[in-house]
Amino acid sequence: MPTANIAVVGLAVMGSNLARNLASREGNTVAVYNRTTAKTDALIEAHPEAEFVKAATMQELADSLQTPRTAIIMVKAGRPTDAVIDELVSVFEPGDIIVDGGNALFTDTIAREKKVRETGIHFVGCGISGGEEGALNGPSLMPGGTVESYETLGPILEKIAAVAEGEACVTHVGADGAGHFVKMIHNGIEYADMQLIAEAYDLIRHATGKSPAEIADIFAEWNEGDLESYLIEITAEVLRQVDAKTGQPLVDVILDAAGAKGTGAWTVQTALDLGVPVSGIAEAVFARSLSSKPAQRAAGAALPGPSSPWSVQDADAFVEDVRLALYASKVIAYSQGFDAIIQGALDHDWAIDKGEVAKIWRGGCIIRARFLNRITEAYAAAPGLVALVTAPFFADVMATAQDSWRRIVAGAAQSGIPIPAFASSLAYYDGLRAPRLPAALVQGQRDFFGAHTYKRIDAEGTFHTLWSGDRSEIEAEDTH
Amino acid sequence: MPTANIAVVGLAVMGSNLARNLASREGNTVAVYNRTTAKTDALIEAHPEAEFVKAATMQELADSLQTPRTAIIMVKAGRPTDAVIDELVSVFEPGDIIVDGGNALFTDTIAREKKVRETGIHFVGCGISGGEEGALNGPSLMPGGTVESYETLGPILEKIAAVAEGEACVTHVGADGAGHFVKMIHNGIEYADMQLIAEAYDLIRHATGKSPAEIADIFAEWNEGDLESYLIEITAEVLRQVDAKTGQPLVDVILDAAGAKGTGAWTVQTALDLGVPVSGIAEAVFARSLSSKPAQRAAGAALPGPSSPWSVQDADAFVEDVRLALYASKVIAYSQGFDAIIQGALDHDWAIDKGEVAKIWRGGCIIRARFLNRITEAYAAAPGLVALVTAPFFADVMATAQDSWRRIVAGAAQSGIPIPAFASSLAYYDGLRAPRLPAALVQGQRDFFGAHTYKRIDAEGTFHTLWSGDRSEIEAEDTH
Repeated sequence: MPTANIAVVGLAVMGSNLARNLASREGNTVAVYNRTTAKTDALIEAHPEAEFVKAATMQELADSLQTPRTAIIMVKAGRPTDAVIDELVSVFEPGDIIVDGGNALFTDTIAREKKVRETGIHFVGCGISGGEEGALNGPSLMPGGTVESYETLGPILEKIAAVAEGEACVTHVGADGAGHFVKMIHNGIEYADMQLIAEAYDLIRHATGKSPAEIADIFAEWNEGDLESYLIEITAEVLRQVDAKTGQPLVDVILDAAGAKGTGAWTVQTALDLGVPVSGIAEAVFARSLSSKPAQRAAGAALPGPSSPWSVQDADAFVEDVRLALYASKVIAYSQGFDAIIQGALDHDWAIDKGEVAKIWRGGCIIRARFLNRITEAYAAAPGLVALVTAPFFADVMATAQDSWRRIVAGAAQSGIPIPAFASSLAYYDGLRAPRLPAALVQGQRDFFGAHTYKRIDAEGTFHTLWSGDRSEIEAEDTH
Repeated sequence: MPTANIAVVGLAVMGSNLARNLASREGNTVAVYNRTTAKTDALIEAHPEAEFVKAATMQELADSLQTPRTAIIMVKAGRPTDAVIDELVSVFEPGDIIVDGGNALFTDTIAREKKVRETGIHFVGCGISGGEEGALNGPSLMPGGTVESYETLGPILEKIAAVAEGEACVTHVGADGAGHFVKMIHNGIEYADMQLIAEAYDLIRHATGKSPAEIADIFAEWNEGDLESYLIEITAEVLRQVDAKTGQPLVDVILDAAGAKGTGAWTVQTALDLGVPVSGIAEAVFARSLSSKPAQRAAGAALPGPSSPWSVQDADAFVEDVRLALYASKVIAYSQGFDAIIQGALDHDWAIDKGEVAKIWRGGCIIRARFLNRITEAYAAAPGLVALVTAPFFADVMATAQDSWRRIVAGAAQSGIPIPAFASSLAYYDGLRAPRLPAALVQGQRDFFGAHTYKRIDAEGTFHTLWSGDRSEIEAEDTH
């Protein structure tokens, strides 16, 4: 007699926490399965209040579930995920639902959905953000897959998701890999956001000589305003932390080599395929990889820098400049990220509601922030908005922030403080604004050396100048 | 009776020109084959002086070749290339050599080499740079594959390659996909170089009001000094060109939307896999994609910019600043490109001689430049050089250029001229120099929200602060 309405497969920390979250909600009975049964037993023993249904085999798991059966896979991305999918397919029936809650690359999810669909079983790639704590107490959830599968899955996910301003942080993102795609972009934006915060800290530290504790106070204050967000909040916590061993600020004893799990790089690689400039995210990924190259940095330490450091006179005004530069750069990072979502949706035929995406990022996930409401409003007011930064609210932010932003980027360039993400965001902004770009010269060069042709501003068609001939212009086949 | 020593398969412009180049060299008899025989006939008829050997079928091609048979494939990358390889494998014998001269992705070349090797036939992926004219008169050639295959192929390629300072622009780059890999990086550097030149032009135009013709003179002058290169030379030509229809400078009637064939994006995507920051190349690729988004740019045109443009007082001094900024940024682009070569060689177990690579880029190819000799010298003096920019010659360039570079980046930020590649290169340079990077804060954030752990500057091991607990530090498993 099946008693469970949902199953979790894979009981490492994320899976265990998600299972406990599910079990704690009214109306759920959760079946749990792990390849090593000892782990299943340990979880059940540690959490009797959850009243888990133990499944020792995949067949037991299937037998324990009411139909349509629904199982969330929480195992490592790649082959382990494929193995579990195959096993579930062998014991599930048409109409049942397999959910992959891991960090799969969205193209893998598209391929898996296509394969599983042939059996009549639904396959849902679901992005889950918020780490271990989010899994337990309320993550941001980004499911893809069919609309039909969401009819069963949606109500279950809505109960376990984080809640922001009364709304569950979950929505049906779109078909097949749309959920994992949007989760990937989320992570890319997270990389940019973290790098921008790090640059803001570095600027204040170098130019004003303030201590990490003093800068913690600044971030805590920023967290009361436009920049209010989880990342700003925890930055203050990290900067305030004192190392017990040395009495030094912890940030000064942490090795300055940032690691990465790869989703930032995926975002950039995907955006390159889509033809979308995500320069802020790219600079953030590159900044981490540069930081993790000790031999290069040791050799680079001898390279000449500016003769004098930045010494600001009015520290308060400087800090406000940095705050506005951070705000403006952050808008660009989100604008670029949403560009990638728009283009991804076009290329993959997903109906993604951008405003809904911003909404479900307001709680549970790492980039949760006050200003996501402004993004939702921007897309609600103009669903066809082609670039987020051009929405009236954000254009106003730019108007307020740009002088400060320019001063900060200029001063950092003069004084040798590396701010790749700030500088790149500003350059992108000025490129987006430019009535003419020197891309015309690039097209001229390409036509010169490779006969790649060009378009004209004053005529339809495609043209080529006979550079090695009499330099007259001819109409040409488009070989862009 | 076999009479030919080399064959060309695929007789579009690049293939035809390469075949004619081969035929013009002492000792070569060239067999030619095209899927559509009419094309073969047309080439033979148009160039009787080449004394081509016609092959109407693949079997005839094989029969016409002395052993070891050597055929260069010049067809579209992807499936057409695979189809021709399969056909050649079916008529060739162990010890024969199949060369792919197309722009294949190096990972495809690695896979093809592995598959063809099983038949005992050699497969060589060969990067060919220089476009149609290079193919005819002397390209830069970057063959991979086995050392054994190069014994036969090398002398043939050495005769048709460009010659720079008396040396043929060809070398055996390394095993399997090494040649196509290095060709890809070459193209990535080319993207960066072109974008940097475009930014230099744009700066001078906006800040001094000089005309394209006047700027052409400046580029022509630059071509007499450190920046001497093919791209600088043709930039002067393009800028000097007047449009016959309008009487305007051609660069002003060309639509400012730059196209791309994808190898720049490949370079960045590959570098992301390798963990190598190639920010200059990435910004160049992104600048092209931004330029090609008319709807976004139309919306962006209304965004607020600085109140006053850059109006320089001393135009000559400004132009010299731009020249030095261009030089310094270009060094960074090459330094990042060679970083990718070094890491690619490590990851794929290729023995790539960096100095030789710089040498074979001195002629035939798009990025040919005087300063490639300095790169060769740098790697000759220090084969283990970890970052090209740290070599004494280039460090001296930085010492000379950095003040100018900083002035230009700062001024562009203040005045709203988009210079993504200049700014990114400077930020990278300052990051490479930095004794401490704010990556320590990023690691602190990652440890806070994801328990990703960190290293300490004063102790071995991996650590985690119990952020949700008593905030003491524990030793932890490395989960970077």
